[in-house]
Amino acid sequence: MTHFRITVEYDGTPYVGWQRQDNGPSIQAALESALREFCGEDVAVHGAGRTDAGVHALGQVAHFDIARDTDAATVIDALNHFLRHEPISVLETEAVDEDFHARFSATRRHYRYRILNRRPRPTVTRGRVSWVPVPLDADAMASAAQCLVGEHDFSSFRASICQAKSPVKTLDRLDVSRHGDEIHVEASARSFLHHQVRNIVGTLELVGKGRWSADDVSAALDARDRAAAGPTAPACGLYLLSVDYGDV
Amino acid sequence: MTHFRITVEYDGTPYVGWQRQDNGPSIQAALESALREFCGEDVAVHGAGRTDAGVHALGQVAHFDIARDTDAATVIDALNHFLRHEPISVLETEAVDEDFHARFSATRRHYRYRILNRRPRPTVTRGRVSWVPVPLDADAMASAAQCLVGEHDFSSFRASICQAKSPVKTLDRLDVSRHGDEIHVEASARSFLHHQVRNIVGTLELVGKGRWSADDVSAALDARDRAAAGPTAPACGLYLLSVDYGDV
Repeated sequence: MTHFRITVEYDGTPYVGWQRQDNGPSIQAALESALREFCGEDVAVHGAGRTDAGVHALGQVAHFDIARDTDAATVIDALNHFLRHEPISVLETEAVDEDFHARFSATRRHYRYRILNRRPRPTVTRGRVSWVPVPLDADAMASAAQCLVGEHDFSSFRASICQAKSPVKTLDRLDVSRHGDEIHVEASARSFLHHQVRNIVGTLELVGKGRWSADDVSAALDARDRAAAGPTAPACGLYLLSVDYGDV
Repeated sequence: MTHFRITVEYDGTPYVGWQRQDNGPSIQAALESALREFCGEDVAVHGAGRTDAGVHALGQVAHFDIARDTDAATVIDALNHFLRHEPISVLETEAVDEDFHARFSATRRHYRYRILNRRPRPTVTRGRVSWVPVPLDADAMASAAQCLVGEHDFSSFRASICQAKSPVKTLDRLDVSRHGDEIHVEASARSFLHHQVRNIVGTLELVGKGRWSADDVSAALDARDRAAAGPTAPACGLYLLSVDYGDV
């Protein structure tokens, strides 16, 4: 058996999410199907983060084991060949120590959320950004974001279906910056709760619109109640950028 | 009659090009249809550049006249409303002097060509970049490009169906730069021949692959023969960025 680590990029639009599900195509199932075509084995693919339906990845990481004698260069070419009709590309493949686990060995995950903030709808970036037609104050969003950095009980930003044992997470970084018509929210943490980034973005948008102050964000955090925070921002603006392994 | 100038962004993928044609949907026809729905008039829309099928625009400029008494703010909202099912957005609208002509008043046009230069296929940028899986030397492309800057007979880079009276054009700028996995070719000129940017990009790619030298590009230019230059790069990588008016 060889233990492989892969880095995967995908357009999340046509998928029910990373995870294999009965109700539609998933990135995990597409990778497992490509591996089956390649080596004739039923291979289980384990991802670092279970991205939701419509969420994209520029650097998802996954691992799997193959019994067939092969090497990393063959695996990446075979996967990309059998994935050629899917908007999924394997960017890197590496044979790694058997104790490497894409999910449990991860020490930090990095996400970016892209908001197109202008009155006209997106065209060339449709499905690649969320769209907020009213002007957002990115500086106000950036300031308000800082009260969420650090270790907190993020119950107010946690989806009701979240399976994490604890709502306490440490957010290492939450940066908001404007790039022309786009606002990017970048978040880094060892791990995230379900919908945590999208719920944070939906809340910061209230600040950007001038409806909430930074104190309101702080109060929402303290409430430890999902109903106290803002709405969930759409999936299409979210990107899993990369996953770190090893010492933070 | 009020004379309006508009700036338009579009995803060129589903269109036969800017220009109204019998064989499929065009951006021009979509704008004219939206104007008809708005003001009940048959309005002719004139664009600065006739982008080809599949070519995108971030800042196409057009003009038209409306008899109905209205203003720029109403026109932009009406157009974007009636265009809501098309990947076309009007970014700006302005009432201008009647002597403004989107095509003939233009003093400079700016294009960008995006090449995704990596072995794995594009996913989130599919249809937004061309894809060259073999490594390209962007520095060599940038050097070779310089022999095309200035006033030249560009017959070698001109589509056979080009309707321009003269093949002589002045290329003001032709920059090649790498941005991670992408290579951008940026070209500026008062006007371009049909397929000129795409034929230049296809030729520079031969340099990037190490198959051609800068001298080969120079010799292709001197040949004044389309067969002497490289292939036409795909439409999906090309963007009309902006159009200048007034003094250069």
